[in-house]
Amino acid sequence: MSLTIGFIGLGNMGGPMAANLVKAGHTVNVFDLNQSVVNQLVEQGAVATTEAKHCATGVDILISMLPASKHVKSLYLGDAGLIHALSTSTLVIDCSTIDAASARDVGAELAAKGIAFVDAPVSGGVAGATAGTLTFIVGGAQIDFDKAQPVLADMGKNIFHAGDVGAGQVAKICNNMLLSILMAGTSEALQMGINNGLDAKVLSEIMTASSGRNWTLELYNPCPGVMATAPASNDYKPGFMVDLMAKDLGLAMEAAEQSNSSTPMGSMAKNLYTMLQEQGAGSDDFSAVFKLFSKE
Amino acid sequence: MSLTIGFIGLGNMGGPMAANLVKAGHTVNVFDLNQSVVNQLVEQGAVATTEAKHCATGVDILISMLPASKHVKSLYLGDAGLIHALSTSTLVIDCSTIDAASARDVGAELAAKGIAFVDAPVSGGVAGATAGTLTFIVGGAQIDFDKAQPVLADMGKNIFHAGDVGAGQVAKICNNMLLSILMAGTSEALQMGINNGLDAKVLSEIMTASSGRNWTLELYNPCPGVMATAPASNDYKPGFMVDLMAKDLGLAMEAAEQSNSSTPMGSMAKNLYTMLQEQGAGSDDFSAVFKLFSKE
Amino acid sequence: MSLTIGFIGLGNMGGPMAANLVKAGHTVNVFDLNQSVVNQLVEQGAVATTEAKHCATGVDILISMLPASKHVKSLYLGDAGLIHALSTSTLVIDCSTIDAASARDVGAELAAKGIAFVDAPVSGGVAGATAGTLTFIVGGAQIDFDKAQPVLADMGKNIFHAGDVGAGQVAKICNNMLLSILMAGTSEALQMGINNGLDAKVLSEIMTASSGRNWTLELYNPCPGVMATAPASNDYKPGFMVDLMAKDLGLAMEAAEQSNSSTPMGSMAKNLYTMLQEQGAGSDDFSAVFKLFSKE
Amino acid sequence: MSLTIGFIGLGNMGGPMAANLVKAGHTVNVFDLNQSVVNQLVEQGAVATTEAKHCATGVDILISMLPASKHVKSLYLGDAGLIHALSTSTLVIDCSTIDAASARDVGAELAAKGIAFVDAPVSGGVAGATAGTLTFIVGGAQIDFDKAQPVLADMGKNIFHAGDVGAGQVAKICNNMLLSILMAGTSEALQMGINNGLDAKVLSEIMTASSGRNWTLELYNPCPGVMATAPASNDYKPGFMVDLMAKDLGLAMEAAEQSNSSTPMGSMAKNLYTMLQEQGAGSDDFSAVFKLFSKE
Repeated sequence: MSLTIGFIGLGNMGGPMAANLVKAGHTVNVFDLNQSVVNQLVEQGAVATTEAKHCATGVDILISMLPASKHVKSLYLGDAGLIHALSTSTLVIDCSTIDAASARDVGAELAAKGIAFVDAPVSGGVAGATAGTLTFIVGGAQIDFDKAQPVLADMGKNIFHAGDVGAGQVAKICNNMLLSILMAGTSEALQMGINNGLDAKVLSEIMTASSGRNWTLELYNPCPGVMATAPASNDYKPGFMVDLMAKDLGLAMEAAEQSNSSTPMGSMAKNLYTMLQEQGAGSDDFSAVFKLFSKE
Repeated sequence: MSLTIGFIGLGNMGGPMAANLVKAGHTVNVFDLNQSVVNQLVEQGAVATTEAKHCATGVDILISMLPASKHVKSLYLGDAGLIHALSTSTLVIDCSTIDAASARDVGAELAAKGIAFVDAPVSGGVAGATAGTLTFIVGGAQIDFDKAQPVLADMGKNIFHAGDVGAGQVAKICNNMLLSILMAGTSEALQMGINNGLDAKVLSEIMTASSGRNWTLELYNPCPGVMATAPASNDYKPGFMVDLMAKDLGLAMEAAEQSNSSTPMGSMAKNLYTMLQEQGAGSDDFSAVFKLFSKE
Repeated sequence: MSLTIGFIGLGNMGGPMAANLVKAGHTVNVFDLNQSVVNQLVEQGAVATTEAKHCATGVDILISMLPASKHVKSLYLGDAGLIHALSTSTLVIDCSTIDAASARDVGAELAAKGIAFVDAPVSGGVAGATAGTLTFIVGGAQIDFDKAQPVLADMGKNIFHAGDVGAGQVAKICNNMLLSILMAGTSEALQMGINNGLDAKVLSEIMTASSGRNWTLELYNPCPGVMATAPASNDYKPGFMVDLMAKDLGLAMEAAEQSNSSTPMGSMAKNLYTMLQEQGAGSDDFSAVFKLFSKE
Repeated sequence: MSLTIGFIGLGNMGGPMAANLVKAGHTVNVFDLNQSVVNQLVEQGAVATTEAKHCATGVDILISMLPASKHVKSLYLGDAGLIHALSTSTLVIDCSTIDAASARDVGAELAAKGIAFVDAPVSGGVAGATAGTLTFIVGGAQIDFDKAQPVLADMGKNIFHAGDVGAGQVAKICNNMLLSILMAGTSEALQMGINNGLDAKVLSEIMTASSGRNWTLELYNPCPGVMATAPASNDYKPGFMVDLMAKDLGLAMEAAEQSNSSTPMGSMAKNLYTMLQEQGAGSDDFSAVFKLFSKE
């Protein structure tokens, strides 16, 4: 079914996502403060708009993809917010990764005006955005999820419904916190094996076939040379940057704090990533945590 | 090929392992200080011996399965050790989980007398020992591994060659240290999700399909009620006890210390398991680390 | 010099602080939503006011002592805030413990109206508030600190100038984060000594005279029986509650996050205090972290 | 009272310690495998011996100061050990820092031959050894402590009796583990303050006067420029090397493991010091842990 969709935020992620919606046959209004990315999308068949308000008017679905919660709040809320321009027949899908509390705030204010909202943070990176293979983790009412699902499926492969508004953000940071733990833990286990005379490749195979199995061993081995296609074998070129993992862990620590959750492994991982940043490795792939454990 | 095999140490693990060798058609001499377990094995077709020395004489392969390194060292080395009784045509396979340094010591002393030795610690628990589906992680020369492999295959399903003598022990504790990190990390991620309003089952499904995927989410979910067959859904009845994980983590910390390896995640897991023991949960399944994070 | 002072927030801390200002000879207007604590202060010589605005009008100095940043922000800022009622001749002293960013926000908005502000969080507890021996850690301009200093001296013993507005809050949480580290570290060192056969009192004396010396060993030993007057020897009756330390550590983690600071020891302490809360010990004295390390 | 004393191990610490015994008027037999350090002591008035056995014969007290437990065990025990040469009228004082279990082993074997033994590890470094201001932490029977005390007082200022044989070692590593926690915790608290705009010197003064007070703030500030005489202000020239702290923390982790003690803060500190070593800072002063937290 062809829809009219507004898309605000055409950065590294948002640009290719909007392009995939065009390819899927939708009419896509686009907006970004950076005119050159707007022009690129127009060349691919999107319709330029010169204000966020115009982009959000008369559309079945409005999608936003912004860097942080302050941008999301400022786009939707306040005196100049889209909340005053949106129709109650438009479903808002925010794909930004922000804190759950902000997502719930935006959702609640929109709901008070009768406007439906889901949070739908993604994983899969620029490559997944381009290939249309992203994972979306969605928070919102079932009826809104059902409406969002086919559109998200035009940009991604796995679409999960995590719960009510905000639950998408919560599930994403739980997952990414766990991912950071897997990466740090796998790194130190591999290095301890190496320090005790084992071959990293052999040890990786053994643990992958045993109870140490995890996503990083299967697809993203942090030890240089073990997996030719992994960032570790390519000078830790990202991939998913240390700085981005540190940002997600910051959101996780905030969520832990607000819910009074004890997260000793996640806190440890957070501190390891902050140390990496302090050592100037913020732009490396997040598997570079391995370097903290290897000998100089 | 039917062999003559000596088997020393018929405890919860060793007993069913020896029984599987009998079933596979081997002639199995057995020895244990506990006469009643010897009698049980004899009923299943094994040959009783009344001294370790007799058990180890005239066999193609000698297998030992003992609680700790002091028992292994005392069995093989010293004035009363089997080192003085073993033939150079016998291959020694020690299946105990001990520190790598001790395994290397025993291997080196036996090698000096021309006696071949591999360390082959197992994972898979009593259930795996009984079903013959254990995993063996073997350290030793290729020629000795090749000789051990078919016999180990009569007791297990996955037989890995980790490297030289001692490498089996190293790989096992690297794996088990990583497992403890997966279990603790998965537990705190799930509980943080729960504390933020998510359903543990939904969150588990999402993370299993995402980059948080790991062995514990797939097969051994630590949150009660998510996975009906997991110890967590059965009052944390083991399974693999907290005390045993704490023992393996002790070996891991020793290996880290001796090789000057930095293992912040493993150290954290070690301390969580020690706290669990202090709170009286030593006999619970190791997934009970989840309880440290859940509200009273 | 006798001044006219407004005091808002007459809880466990604010009540005795205001009483000490009365004793020092100042004219003290008081306000609290709880009428009974207002009445108590009036009996001691204070002047009741029925609105915060009245309390803040015509005074040389206005002091607030509130539970959290939302209360402070709501008191001073917004359409109904005191910012519209305060005179530029009044110095505002906020003694609440809140995050530094909020303190800076309030300070900046007041400054824009020409109203001077210092943050002056305290330590010393209810006992110190009553005895007039509190420590104040002050953030603000030198001229404002000089004006605040004699009034704070009527309620406390040590008055520090930490830097500009917000610096008082930063210094306090740095100190309290370090305190939690001292307490947890001292606890585990003592328990490890006990587990290895040492007498806790002897070990405490040795470490107090050596490089392990710290405030907790000197004044607040966490091991029951070592120091008769410490909460540890009195069933961990507070003192300074686990819940309050956890709150301060939450502020510390927030400050670490916002400044991208790596705080592995503080994160660990935070998680230990959260675990204590989960185990139902939130109302115990914060030295009860010792119980996490002692055998059941 | 002038005694005849044997002294084995004339390294950076042992050399000046033996010299102070000579200065105090004792007859001091010395032995070391390094002939040049023996010669230096002879110039200062000591008596050279050419074998450990000769050094240990006919003396009231025998003191040893060796690098690690294997050296201590090999000196005293085994077929070639001093155990066969020592008189029952000689008190043995081992000042080496070794694991408590080894100290107890040596003590027990000597006791079985009627030879008295105390363990008396020191703190205070080369400067303290030279100045005669070392701290000794002694484990042994009261009668032996009383005999050792005046001799130790010729080399040090504080002489503590921690308990039975081995207790000196336990108390020392408890203290040094706590010291590492104080150093790491103080470092991260100071850096977090700096990152939030505070002056390190001002924050140090405030925390020294508050509940964050500890030995490192008082005497050994880890932030460059705060304390002119501290290693931090002198390019982290030791002082007490990272490598030595890491060694002591290794002994602490071993003691924790053997006594099943939970030491989360100590484990964290251990891992921080191991990371420092991995980054090539092993020869820096141990206050260089501060560098892990500061921005590049």
